[in-house]
Amino acid sequence: MGGAGFIGSVLIRRLLQDGHRVSVFDRDARVLINQMPELASATQADFSDVMSLAEAMTGVDLIFHLISTSVPSTSNKNPVHDVESNLVNTVKLLELMRATDVKRIIYLSSGGTVYGNPVSLPINECHSTNPTCSYGIVKLAIEKYLQMYAELYQLDVTILRPSNPYGPGQTRKGVQGFIGTCVDKINSGQAITIWGDGSVVRDYVYIDDVVSACVKAMYTSQRGPFNISSGVGYSLNQLVEMMEKFLDKKIEVIYQEKRNFDVPEVVLDNQLARATLGWTPKTTIENGLKLTLSNQA
Amino acid sequence: MGGAGFIGSVLIRRLLQDGHRVSVFDRDARVLINQMPELASATQADFSDVMSLAEAMTGVDLIFHLISTSVPSTSNKNPVHDVESNLVNTVKLLELMRATDVKRIIYLSSGGTVYGNPVSLPINECHSTNPTCSYGIVKLAIEKYLQMYAELYQLDVTILRPSNPYGPGQTRKGVQGFIGTCVDKINSGQAITIWGDGSVVRDYVYIDDVVSACVKAMYTSQRGPFNISSGVGYSLNQLVEMMEKFLDKKIEVIYQEKRNFDVPEVVLDNQLARATLGWTPKTTIENGLKLTLSNQA
Repeated sequence: MGGAGFIGSVLIRRLLQDGHRVSVFDRDARVLINQMPELASATQADFSDVMSLAEAMTGVDLIFHLISTSVPSTSNKNPVHDVESNLVNTVKLLELMRATDVKRIIYLSSGGTVYGNPVSLPINECHSTNPTCSYGIVKLAIEKYLQMYAELYQLDVTILRPSNPYGPGQTRKGVQGFIGTCVDKINSGQAITIWGDGSVVRDYVYIDDVVSACVKAMYTSQRGPFNISSGVGYSLNQLVEMMEKFLDKKIEVIYQEKRNFDVPEVVLDNQLARATLGWTPKTTIENGLKLTLSNQA
Repeated sequence: MGGAGFIGSVLIRRLLQDGHRVSVFDRDARVLINQMPELASATQADFSDVMSLAEAMTGVDLIFHLISTSVPSTSNKNPVHDVESNLVNTVKLLELMRATDVKRIIYLSSGGTVYGNPVSLPINECHSTNPTCSYGIVKLAIEKYLQMYAELYQLDVTILRPSNPYGPGQTRKGVQGFIGTCVDKINSGQAITIWGDGSVVRDYVYIDDVVSACVKAMYTSQRGPFNISSGVGYSLNQLVEMMEKFLDKKIEVIYQEKRNFDVPEVVLDNQLARATLGWTPKTTIENGLKLTLSNQA
């Protein structure tokens, strides 16, 4: 579910490579059919289309839930839509799972938004959760429903909280992600916009590392939530410097007023995922940026 | 908002007594008009009726939000409705508050359900929150939106988490509350139903103490959340014994199979509310039960 998105499309390639039978449910599923003829099926439908969803679930052993109709930076513009499309439809999905034989779900939550302003760094999974955007609140409420359905109705649930995923392919897929947006701007010769002074620190995790965490999560019986992160923080200015160094050219940056929902620093502790899933992030920011820039420049 | 309910109607009487101007918004508001001619206004409308809500908010300084369309024991039967009616409409209310001059809101959340299975007792406000019913998840998500709107849009928010409120009037108002249901059954000569063996422990807080916490909350600038509780736990069997002693008669109890969403014990630490709001619960369980039974027997 959500297989045509940035993470989804890379995950599907990996699952197909590993020999799994993969079906896709996405409002843009058709674009994948030509790209990946090995797909078992592809359902192009909106998340609210319960009939199509039920049909697509037939014979499925495990659901990866990667659907989100909103992104952090714009979710506060229409929080009602955010709740109605993401939370309500996910609860409908869980009700379907109760009623059918599909009992296993891996959910991609958001380590970058569920915690809100950090009380201590790096942030582990026990940190308080006070999101500063609707996107994070909805992700958190979905986690709570997943945990409840696991507890009461024996659904087999695993929750992953990726920090800030990045990598080749992100730019073509939406408006989420500073690095993806940068690459896009650089390629089209435009200036990069930074809200605030560029000191905001985030934990960037390379797409292949996120996908390998998804694959590891298939083989655990633990619910999590698990932070999926590099464990290292970089400021926006540091990223720009690294990209300048790699491209060997000056990148033009326009600094705009700070956004009220941007928390100053997010760095996630990934010890739990390392210990429980046997997962390790393998891509340094330098290598990840090189791979991203060279695959899209 | 929600002024015709159990807590709401007692709170309104208290606010009127204290000389406040009170307007009510409730789907059953009309019943209050005859009972309380001092009311400034009464709007009978559904929570989803945004036009009526906006109109009812005109000239208001402070909103008490006590509306809930669901109760803990039945919320899992229709979680989609729970989200749509309670969470979506509350986010709409918050959007209205952003757009108007009404900036102060006191929300009655649920200390009895937001924490889920206790990791440590008594439960303080930093305890993990993993509700075992949709009612609790929705209350928690509403808290998160309130905190976010306070942070980003300067709404003046206070969140109270009452444990298990009880007192005269509860039976006539709904299906929530073991003590209220007991009194109802006793009066009509029926047996009491207990799910499980009666060892389930809850923290019962008397209605006048909840209302005095609401009044104290009007004068704080702290957001909370604040547990509003007696701080003492009693099992269902102990409550039945106490009622038998007071009524001087045997109460018939039917024990049925345990419900999957009932957590074994909830006792809430109320130190934060005592220290910050200057509030103290004043009614012992013995006195509270006597008042409840003698006002309704």
